[in-house]
Amino acid sequence: MRAKVTVMLKTGVLDPQGKAIAAALNTLGFAGVGGARQGKVIELDLAEADPDKAHAEVDEMCRRLLANTVIESYAIELE
Amino acid sequence: MRAKVTVMLKTGVLDPQGKAIAAALNTLGFAGVGGARQGKVIELDLAEADPDKAHAEVDEMCRRLLANTVIESYAIELE
Repeated sequence: MRAKVTVMLKTGVLDPQGKAIAAALNTLGFAGVGGARQGKVIELDLAEADPDKAHAEVDEMCRRLLANTVIESYAIELE
Repeated sequence: MRAKVTVMLKTGVLDPQGKAIAAALNTLGFAGVGGARQGKVIELDLAEADPDKAHAEVDEMCRRLLANTVIESYAIELE
């Protein structure tokens, strides 16, 4: 089973990387870009076949390693 | 209109960050993790309201700035 974890900075947390991307796009002539936020995506290959157990396991991975829950939120998709 | 761009390393391109994540998860006791790949996700706020035009614009942004198409592939989702 594969899991896709998306980790984004929480709303309100300053995102300098996103701001840099928006500014660079504006400079390149993409005037319609109002803002950008950057996050990370992690694709995991899991041995677990049960979706509920896999979700619980990935949730624990996010809390323990993949996301800093003080400033980041995460979303889990199973495929 | 919002666009979500996911940029991942192409298959076959070495992903040391993904390998480090998989190794760290194994060390933490998640033995079921066979592999991990890390990419980035960029959320864009666009002034463009037409989905076709927005997609074409974001595609150009990916080719010019957001992705290195030699080693990275990208996917665009409009919301």
